[in-house]
Amino acid sequence: MAKTNPGRFFEDFRLGEVIHHATPRTVTAGDAALYTALYGSRFPVQSSDAFARAIGYPSAPLDDLLVFHVVFGKTVPDISLNAVANLGYAECRFLKVVHPGDTLNTTSEVIGLKENSSRKTGVVYVRSTGYKPDGSKVLEYVRWVMVNKRDEAAPAPGDLVPTLQSVVDVSALGAACPPIDSTAYDFGLAGSRDRFADYEPGEKIDHVDGMTVEEAEHQIATRLYQNTARVHFNEFAQAKSRIGRRLIYGGHVISLARSLSFNGLANAFHIAAINGGRHVNPLFAGDTVFAWSEVIDRAELPGRTDVGALRLRLVATKDRPCADHPLRTGKDYEPAVILDLDYWALIPR
Amino acid sequence: MAKTNPGRFFEDFRLGEVIHHATPRTVTAGDAALYTALYGSRFPVQSSDAFARAIGYPSAPLDDLLVFHVVFGKTVPDISLNAVANLGYAECRFLKVVHPGDTLNTTSEVIGLKENSSRKTGVVYVRSTGYKPDGSKVLEYVRWVMVNKRDEAAPAPGDLVPTLQSVVDVSALGAACPPIDSTAYDFGLAGSRDRFADYEPGEKIDHVDGMTVEEAEHQIATRLYQNTARVHFNEFAQAKSRIGRRLIYGGHVISLARSLSFNGLANAFHIAAINGGRHVNPLFAGDTVFAWSEVIDRAELPGRTDVGALRLRLVATKDRPCADHPLRTGKDYEPAVILDLDYWALIPR
Amino acid sequence: MAKTNPGRFFEDFRLGEVIHHATPRTVTAGDAALYTALYGSRFPVQSSDAFARAIGYPSAPLDDLLVFHVVFGKTVPDISLNAVANLGYAECRFLKVVHPGDTLNTTSEVIGLKENSSRKTGVVYVRSTGYKPDGSKVLEYVRWVMVNKRDEAAPAPGDLVPTLQSVVDVSALGAACPPIDSTAYDFGLAGSRDRFADYEPGEKIDHVDGMTVEEAEHQIATRLYQNTARVHFNEFAQAKSRIGRRLIYGGHVISLARSLSFNGLANAFHIAAINGGRHVNPLFAGDTVFAWSEVIDRAELPGRTDVGALRLRLVATKDRPCADHPLRTGKDYEPAVILDLDYWALIPR
Repeated sequence: MAKTNPGRFFEDFRLGEVIHHATPRTVTAGDAALYTALYGSRFPVQSSDAFARAIGYPSAPLDDLLVFHVVFGKTVPDISLNAVANLGYAECRFLKVVHPGDTLNTTSEVIGLKENSSRKTGVVYVRSTGYKPDGSKVLEYVRWVMVNKRDEAAPAPGDLVPTLQSVVDVSALGAACPPIDSTAYDFGLAGSRDRFADYEPGEKIDHVDGMTVEEAEHQIATRLYQNTARVHFNEFAQAKSRIGRRLIYGGHVISLARSLSFNGLANAFHIAAINGGRHVNPLFAGDTVFAWSEVIDRAELPGRTDVGALRLRLVATKDRPCADHPLRTGKDYEPAVILDLDYWALIPR
Repeated sequence: MAKTNPGRFFEDFRLGEVIHHATPRTVTAGDAALYTALYGSRFPVQSSDAFARAIGYPSAPLDDLLVFHVVFGKTVPDISLNAVANLGYAECRFLKVVHPGDTLNTTSEVIGLKENSSRKTGVVYVRSTGYKPDGSKVLEYVRWVMVNKRDEAAPAPGDLVPTLQSVVDVSALGAACPPIDSTAYDFGLAGSRDRFADYEPGEKIDHVDGMTVEEAEHQIATRLYQNTARVHFNEFAQAKSRIGRRLIYGGHVISLARSLSFNGLANAFHIAAINGGRHVNPLFAGDTVFAWSEVIDRAELPGRTDVGALRLRLVATKDRPCADHPLRTGKDYEPAVILDLDYWALIPR
Repeated sequence: MAKTNPGRFFEDFRLGEVIHHATPRTVTAGDAALYTALYGSRFPVQSSDAFARAIGYPSAPLDDLLVFHVVFGKTVPDISLNAVANLGYAECRFLKVVHPGDTLNTTSEVIGLKENSSRKTGVVYVRSTGYKPDGSKVLEYVRWVMVNKRDEAAPAPGDLVPTLQSVVDVSALGAACPPIDSTAYDFGLAGSRDRFADYEPGEKIDHVDGMTVEEAEHQIATRLYQNTARVHFNEFAQAKSRIGRRLIYGGHVISLARSLSFNGLANAFHIAAINGGRHVNPLFAGDTVFAWSEVIDRAELPGRTDVGALRLRLVATKDRPCADHPLRTGKDYEPAVILDLDYWALIPR
């Protein structure tokens, strides 16, 4: 039997199946430093132990998206090695704060399977869970991905499209954010006076800055997450493909956009949930990423007066500044748009 | 009111004003590893806990320039986002040793303002201070920078050029260097036998090696310092600018030159002060950096027999080896010279 | 006397001489994170404290090759600054597990000297030893390198070619691997069910994936190891050389190939010894590295039932997938082959 992992094809998945992914990973201060170096993130809670302690954390937590990427990376060898496209995310909730020294594992449950009419591919829906060795969950999300069939003639392994929430309910937010002492939250050190009540639904914010991406950067990032998807690393094969070159991991785009969004959302320090996300267009090395946000909603958290939630649409573009908040031309996305992400962030009241 | 930071223009500064900068940062072993990976620094005190402990440190301190860059990076959003040019540094003193786990903050006091005759720009002088959460100072320096006016017609906000020392006094050196046990300083492990008395004023040292810089490297470094100056990251905007491409952070050049200077100054392990520095020409990715040093002065520290101070001129060039110590052609710098730095280093007696 | 290190020439070496190399280095979680980011390594013992503890380590050890590169890097300024070619390795044994916080030093003993018939160069054989400050050895290996003479007329400093073992004896393996609890080794989390008995001598494994290398990546890696060999960093000088560009550190190739080999050898978690290795062709930035392995031998370790040893040939290529296990065309290596490495790996019984 082959000792190398060929990846699963569509007909290899079973509804209800739970997949335990390799490789356990202890995340450290080294990972946090690399994350800062790769994205230039400046949210003070994640940047400073002193700031984090003052408001109620035992020390600076790891960036939520670093946790997401490490948990996500583990799923690639089992779920998406033979994927044609990553189609979407939903119901992503951050459930527990993660600190340097914590170890992360991931399992995925197959919650939906739908063959495409061509019979060449099918869509696989998984609910992936990141957890610590004590079994406590740190992150949960649904993703669906179009996967090749090995054999077109094979019968579809199932036929179920799961019902997914379009928005994570406010009552489900905040598990990964301890009660914080808002009076100890130093808005001067954080870099902005704007808090919960200062953001209005409908408000749009251009994050102004642009960040050009290099091949070395996205490869270093994606390997840090132990994400092995071949399209990111193998120029020899990619040059022969339809795309023609290495494709940048979509999570790298999310982290770049989130980091750029500090300029305008400096106190929205914690991502509590991701309602959905689409990688509208690919990003390549040499492109410059810009971003803008729209406040979709503003919600109090049941039983909490320390922080509130902003529902934000985060849009990233390439080689296209965002002063006019580019999104669609008619029904289609503008060609420069690369990411359309819908998430809940927590911010001091 | 805009939630994004537009940066201050010349007329927004006030003499005597103290600016508390965002973002607090806990520096870690992760930052130290990245610093080594970016510059290849080999000074043993910063490289080895065992070496550092043997001579009197509790553990290996962070590289002085890493501390400088982190402290400096915080000032960019408030001081130099609309800067035309970084004109100079003076009176920079390292005041306290910094170890992994320490958190750094920065404040700046406006100590000088001088409108230029064009009335389009002005020079802002700030004294910036890096400090720990307990208030203890780790670093202090003056920098002056040419800043655009928002409105040419606006009155100058002040008219004072501060008097600055051309050289930091020897009596002010050494606060960030604990008393060291010179007998425990292993010159073999350090890589050189040369100590204080072996360097003569007037002596010039070619540091021989060259280091080529890549876009990914300087971007990773500059983001690590949470320095947000746009010229370093945004190829899309830079391509349209007069410069035509991304400009490398001047501090990256200083760190490269300092690291190259190990070959010839292996025991000059601590930067105690920077008397002044000029970025004579820009550095771009693909250029190869070389460096040479001149011993300007040699001074005993009052009350200390463990270490002495060398006043060094550190000159960096691009695509130009330094065997003949290139500096000026007539009154002007040679076109290949990119850095002319004047600093005090401590070295065992 | 010159303060910069000119490197040793062939006639500067003496048989039996022991060279104490600079620079001591404390390796940290920061180095481990960078190692993961540079190679994407996924061996669970090195990736997870929890996994390592479960089987008997106090915490996750550092990757064996990271230890090798750090120990090796120290030898460059004294041994190979004037080297023409790195000719080979032998008798490399890993002797003690290394954890974050440990400090590494290196000494080398000159064990062979052989002038070439041209009298322009000679071969220097050294046995290098990596050790901790308490004197305990962590690594030992022999390397030989062709070094320029300063003066062709100088007499050869010695004439001895040492006898070297072609294979490290099985009885000498395992010192750096504590007794492990194989029942606690989670093969699911490790990513493969294959253990000692599942590998047969003669078996060949294509590791499938390819990894393209960027200039920034190999420079960051090689500086992390404080390896100062000029050919890796100085594009200005290299452009004028016969090679025409920067050459990638051979150790970078070994680490890339080892990391790729996870796909097929996921449980071969520890490199116990390197029997020999040849860098058959140079690697340059932009090339894509592939790898395959052959199981040469399978051996039980005397007195140990927890782990066994696989003797593996690890072959790396550039821009050449390895499905057909490329190696030689007649007597010569195929032009695409860049590495031919022979090593012992430990794997659970």
